[in-house]
Amino acid sequence: MVEHFFTVKRFDIDLGKYQVVLNDHDAEELGVHSQDRVKVAKNGDQVTAIVDTTDSVVEPGQCGAFLELVERLDLKDGDKLLITPADKPASIHHIRKKMRGGELTGEEIDQLVRDIVDGDITDIELSAYVTAVEIRDMNIREVEDLTRAMVKYGEVIEFEGQTVFDKHSIGGVPGNKITLLVVPIVAAAGLLIPKTSSRAVTGAAGTSDIMECFCPVTLTGEEIKRITLEHGGVMCWGGGVNLAPADDIIIRVEHPLGLDPKAQLLASVMAKKKAVGAQHVVIDLPTGEGTKLPDPDAARRLARDFIDLGERLDMRVECAITYGSQPVGKTIGPALEGNEALAALRGEDAAPRSLLEKSTSIAGILLEMGGVCSRGKGKRKAEEILASGDAHRKFWDIVKAQGGKEVPLLEVGKHKADIVSMEDGYVTGIGNKTLVNLARLTGAPKDKGAGVVIHKKRGDKVDPGDAILTLYAESEFKMRTALAHAKKFQPIRIEGMLMQRIPEIRELPEVSRV
Amino acid sequence: MVEHFFTVKRFDIDLGKYQVVLNDHDAEELGVHSQDRVKVAKNGDQVTAIVDTTDSVVEPGQCGAFLELVERLDLKDGDKLLITPADKPASIHHIRKKMRGGELTGEEIDQLVRDIVDGDITDIELSAYVTAVEIRDMNIREVEDLTRAMVKYGEVIEFEGQTVFDKHSIGGVPGNKITLLVVPIVAAAGLLIPKTSSRAVTGAAGTSDIMECFCPVTLTGEEIKRITLEHGGVMCWGGGVNLAPADDIIIRVEHPLGLDPKAQLLASVMAKKKAVGAQHVVIDLPTGEGTKLPDPDAARRLARDFIDLGERLDMRVECAITYGSQPVGKTIGPALEGNEALAALRGEDAAPRSLLEKSTSIAGILLEMGGVCSRGKGKRKAEEILASGDAHRKFWDIVKAQGGKEVPLLEVGKHKADIVSMEDGYVTGIGNKTLVNLARLTGAPKDKGAGVVIHKKRGDKVDPGDAILTLYAESEFKMRTALAHAKKFQPIRIEGMLMQRIPEIRELPEVSRV
Repeated sequence: MVEHFFTVKRFDIDLGKYQVVLNDHDAEELGVHSQDRVKVAKNGDQVTAIVDTTDSVVEPGQCGAFLELVERLDLKDGDKLLITPADKPASIHHIRKKMRGGELTGEEIDQLVRDIVDGDITDIELSAYVTAVEIRDMNIREVEDLTRAMVKYGEVIEFEGQTVFDKHSIGGVPGNKITLLVVPIVAAAGLLIPKTSSRAVTGAAGTSDIMECFCPVTLTGEEIKRITLEHGGVMCWGGGVNLAPADDIIIRVEHPLGLDPKAQLLASVMAKKKAVGAQHVVIDLPTGEGTKLPDPDAARRLARDFIDLGERLDMRVECAITYGSQPVGKTIGPALEGNEALAALRGEDAAPRSLLEKSTSIAGILLEMGGVCSRGKGKRKAEEILASGDAHRKFWDIVKAQGGKEVPLLEVGKHKADIVSMEDGYVTGIGNKTLVNLARLTGAPKDKGAGVVIHKKRGDKVDPGDAILTLYAESEFKMRTALAHAKKFQPIRIEGMLMQRIPEIRELPEVSRV
Repeated sequence: MVEHFFTVKRFDIDLGKYQVVLNDHDAEELGVHSQDRVKVAKNGDQVTAIVDTTDSVVEPGQCGAFLELVERLDLKDGDKLLITPADKPASIHHIRKKMRGGELTGEEIDQLVRDIVDGDITDIELSAYVTAVEIRDMNIREVEDLTRAMVKYGEVIEFEGQTVFDKHSIGGVPGNKITLLVVPIVAAAGLLIPKTSSRAVTGAAGTSDIMECFCPVTLTGEEIKRITLEHGGVMCWGGGVNLAPADDIIIRVEHPLGLDPKAQLLASVMAKKKAVGAQHVVIDLPTGEGTKLPDPDAARRLARDFIDLGERLDMRVECAITYGSQPVGKTIGPALEGNEALAALRGEDAAPRSLLEKSTSIAGILLEMGGVCSRGKGKRKAEEILASGDAHRKFWDIVKAQGGKEVPLLEVGKHKADIVSMEDGYVTGIGNKTLVNLARLTGAPKDKGAGVVIHKKRGDKVDPGDAILTLYAESEFKMRTALAHAKKFQPIRIEGMLMQRIPEIRELPEVSRV
């Protein structure tokens, strides 16, 4: 193999991967092109890096090294690096096999996931993988192997033989703060539920964004274990612990493509659960207009896949297909949702029925799975735990264990504006995505106090002058931007015909259990 | 829309696209993620750029700007930029439609190609496009629209009503230096053939790499036109002129993926021909073991597609399915191939039959298409032009017009080593790819004098002590590396059984005309 020594020129830019820049002349000499791989060695310590080429930024004989590589090999300007062309990893062949519609073996999937976690697959290749899986799909055996490999190449939390419970919502419905009720209810009943959550990516408030209003959410695996064993649960950020890290790398490509292939979704969710040792899992699948699963049949098929995959992984899965055409509860935005969850935990009358119904339904399924009560009695039991104040106390126990302290109420944005109806009629539709965009324009999820309160939901009667929405923002500029947007894209549809409230339109979540 | 002013921090690194780096804090504030798009404006001059995020390299309020953007907006450190989130281009929807197996409309394809040429499609998205086309394919109508769009968004050379001829080889066979004979023969017959060629990417010598030993190959569109009108042809580098530039951008992603989707291949080849106004085109499709088209039936189907596409584009296409299981001629490497072509142009006895046969066959088809002679008489006519010395004189006319001068012979690498057979037998196989790798290890295509001479080809008798190959290199180190490689991977297969030379194995190219 052709090999050469190069002089390091540092670029302190984090590209999220090992990358070098070579002069066109040297790249030609080495026989490598942009996006090819090279082995980069300093004193025998060696990594594989991706090549970029230039005719100007580094001179012949120089090697531009980016931050990850600088840190990994402890490089200083002027250091000498030995560079040799490297082959593509074998995983490239597996990706091409999937493109051709082939079934990947367990070994192939294992190698692919390892290479992804090692950072040895470029974004271009990862994009081809995600696209191929989107088009060709995987069978349930491949998904099982994918899940196992994602667990294997990451951190695992062991609860020493104790039974572990978990829940997950695949998302798509705004205002879905039910974890703040479900975890305390389940933990108060004596079960273990080490819940990791995400932050909002395209949404206005992920569970972690809400919890962060109360306490730190970045916990190590050790902390998750200790707090769960002591208090029954945590509500922390999944990104703080290295569970199934392949998922986070793949999401980096899925997000810009707007893709979430079913096989990858199944494996990602179940790998995160398997990595914390969960044996009993409830999956919440919001369905309906404006969700990720507008077709209830598709939701049922996905539920079936989750259950099958669970069986293969020795996990018992139950799925709740839930009503997702309008937000859960009446608030969207971190602090607003935190306060709404507090109202529900405290048993205040202001707590919206939709939030209470959905939370106790989901918690109830877990209570039944854990043998806390018999089948069919779980929701009632969850309501009792909530009414007793045990869940409320448990919530603060967990918050304090994570490093927060009890507060009466979270502060919300000081700029406030009502959106008032000019006509009368009934609410016939709520645009989930428009509401989320509106909340994001007010500043959520970054500005914790920003967001939207929804006063009128589907089926509600509206009179002229009624406030339909209230916006909260921390900056006046964002409030103005959001208001302009609200006028342009009506998030709440009101129809003035002589329509009565019909029984199918309920504010309650319709939890259909699979 | 959220908008903010940022202070420029320049990074003089050419990433091949408009890109900015924002602090995580600011990205969150703007509601954008890594790989999202933003509009970047300085004094009303605005472009769309891709976002990268960092927690360390730029501070809040700073915007890291890479070379392309620095040059485009004439940025200095400390300049103020207005940044606002931008939507994804509509082309993303078209890529997702292709993923789902949909047929793209002409408008969708036009928009996609325009966005690609504008640099508004990220590598991740481009990879998804290429993968989707590889898996879903395109119908002939889509390929036609793709070709037209690729021509439209690029430079076009007009020959003012004159009839233009062209040839193209889809590659895959080493030593294929026939353009150096075909262009002078055709031009000597009075036809116009403005031939643009590529450089080697994974090969050891592209036509441009060979021609560059004789003269400059980077010509403008104006120069191509002028020299072609004056001398009948050029042999220049396609990368020097902006013909169908979408192709070059797409290849940047195809190469690392090792993909070349049929639809994209068809459109790329024909767009480059259409952009120089070619009405009569011969496509050379090398088939056989070790080529891109090992299956002759696949070669015939591809030929059919080229002809159909040509009809739709008002171009007359003939395809030559050629024998590609071993190199054309006996040399691989820029200067070695240049000298071999010279020997053929001069009518020297040393010129290999396979090179002469293939060159005159392909040139002959063009002569027939151009009405220089009747059908079936083209090859004979090409041989006559070659024998007359007209093609040889034309070759040097074109070289001089491109800025080169006549030389007796090109200089080859001063390090030379024979690979000698230790056994006797017959050559039963030649590994195209192994030979190319060997030539690359000697330094080709960068070291012009490096490469391989093949003394024994398929069917040849070998005695112990016979030289099978001679390697040439410009550096001793590369020669050593290549020799070590040659021992490990035997590029010429010799079998010692009592085998006679059988009639099917011919050194001549078997040109089957479609």
